[in-house]
Amino acid sequence: MDKQALLETEQRISSYIHNTPILTSQLLDELTGSKLFFKCENFQKMGAFKMRGATNAIMQLSKAEQERGVVTHSSGNFAQALSLAAKNLGVDAYIVMPNNAPKVKKEAVLSYGGIVTNCEPNITAREQAAAQIVSEKGATFIHPSNDLNVILGNATAGMELLKAHPDLDMIVTPVGGGGLIAGTALAAHYFGKQCLVIGGEPQAADDAFRSLQSGQIETNEAANTVADGLRTQLGDINFPIIQKHVDHIIRVEEEEITKAMKLLWERLKIVVEPSSAVAFAAVLKDKEYFKDKFVGIILSGGNVDLETIKFQ
Amino acid sequence: MDKQALLETEQRISSYIHNTPILTSQLLDELTGSKLFFKCENFQKMGAFKMRGATNAIMQLSKAEQERGVVTHSSGNFAQALSLAAKNLGVDAYIVMPNNAPKVKKEAVLSYGGIVTNCEPNITAREQAAAQIVSEKGATFIHPSNDLNVILGNATAGMELLKAHPDLDMIVTPVGGGGLIAGTALAAHYFGKQCLVIGGEPQAADDAFRSLQSGQIETNEAANTVADGLRTQLGDINFPIIQKHVDHIIRVEEEEITKAMKLLWERLKIVVEPSSAVAFAAVLKDKEYFKDKFVGIILSGGNVDLETIKFQ
Repeated sequence: MDKQALLETEQRISSYIHNTPILTSQLLDELTGSKLFFKCENFQKMGAFKMRGATNAIMQLSKAEQERGVVTHSSGNFAQALSLAAKNLGVDAYIVMPNNAPKVKKEAVLSYGGIVTNCEPNITAREQAAAQIVSEKGATFIHPSNDLNVILGNATAGMELLKAHPDLDMIVTPVGGGGLIAGTALAAHYFGKQCLVIGGEPQAADDAFRSLQSGQIETNEAANTVADGLRTQLGDINFPIIQKHVDHIIRVEEEEITKAMKLLWERLKIVVEPSSAVAFAAVLKDKEYFKDKFVGIILSGGNVDLETIKFQ
Repeated sequence: MDKQALLETEQRISSYIHNTPILTSQLLDELTGSKLFFKCENFQKMGAFKMRGATNAIMQLSKAEQERGVVTHSSGNFAQALSLAAKNLGVDAYIVMPNNAPKVKKEAVLSYGGIVTNCEPNITAREQAAAQIVSEKGATFIHPSNDLNVILGNATAGMELLKAHPDLDMIVTPVGGGGLIAGTALAAHYFGKQCLVIGGEPQAADDAFRSLQSGQIETNEAANTVADGLRTQLGDINFPIIQKHVDHIIRVEEEEITKAMKLLWERLKIVVEPSSAVAFAAVLKDKEYFKDKFVGIILSGGNVDLETIKFQ
């Protein structure tokens, strides 16, 4: 992929997504010693950046492929994204979801017209269920993060951020399956002025951190983190991009994620999900590194099950 | 007060406050059958519309009065507003707070430099404590809602809303002490095109509803509502304005307030306090009345104690 592919992607999907607002906060700037620009993908359609990649991936299918539908497995937001993007484009979406996915996310998938199949909450079970739908329906499988068209779609969030603030020193994103940080890294590479990309990752699901160290894709044993969107692991398409273009990854503890999320809710007065708060938690954890820098932070989504959320 | 007084107020305070964003939601429009415009005073400085009235009231004092400071009693947001407005203008603010006020609001008052005196949570105790500070310090008492300069300052939220959307059929605000709805009623009278103003009020603190019925200021016995900003009652300065310019008041139950707040958090992805949700709850309660109308809703504030909030 080159610069042209990113520009074409931006143009292709622009009428199907929101150019989301970028918020600033004097108080959070004072707290961190940096100048922070929060790209609010919680205000994106269906409430997360995943709408970008899902829309692009479906639009890149042939007419014949679109008619047979799309299928994915997702712990939540990509399921909603593919359902809504498919609905907007007149395509059927088959969604394999782990049976422990947040209730609010399952309900949203159904409300967007997604056709849900439940499975056990592990990657093998998800993949088997999806493969079965591919063979039965002829639907095209679209991976939530390890798909080049998804990555290109995701890149548009960083492109919008850099268009508004071309002088950012760095952009920080959460790292789950790797699709957001890979796309952001491409955006920064082609549209930033020596803009670094840094990942925030839960210590409890630090496969990306370990993968960058070992040079091969590592897995998570338990992935027991409140950041439910980040329990997945990197893939062979996004990992090389991450290796090449991501500066480093900062790992954060569970209580640091909750504390960061609470600060965002209290001070920005916005609802973001725990996964979103991981990037801000990384900035809070390593203030010295970010000091006096212009820092973009991608708040990846806002789909929270309010009935289960707890601040202590 | 005339149109000119409103215009002068807007100009006077404009550099001290935010012209807050106005959000819309296709989903909430579909849910209500109306076209809704949410004026987000939760994004106002210190997190509530009260910053507008507090700033205007202090600016209208003489230099000599400003040097002796200001004093108020408040269940929360006006305390923060007067503290921050006073700080911005180099004035001392003495704040009398009930000892059951939300923790997050007390801490905020202190962080804005307010000088706090605690009192019992009833109006008599508040008034006595404030009167004592007036006599000891020579400070000027500023009432949170029953003060013409506060009302004029509050009016600027409605003015901004009508400037952005001149054709609103009605504006709905929460009703507590009456300062917001009185200001909004003046804004609609002078700047709307036959724009009605309607109040949302908790059934458990429905003094304004009863006052409009009886023609005299009624009191609340218990005021046991989750909308802690609305436990106060109308005053002799705002009541005549409300009688003249407010169309009617819709009362809502506690569970309707919580449900409305949850919808706003989930769908707009913003943090609003229970008092804010009362206006939207009123629209949800009487959908037939608002059907097909262009409805402005003033979301009054976003200062919530996240540690105590519960959605069931």
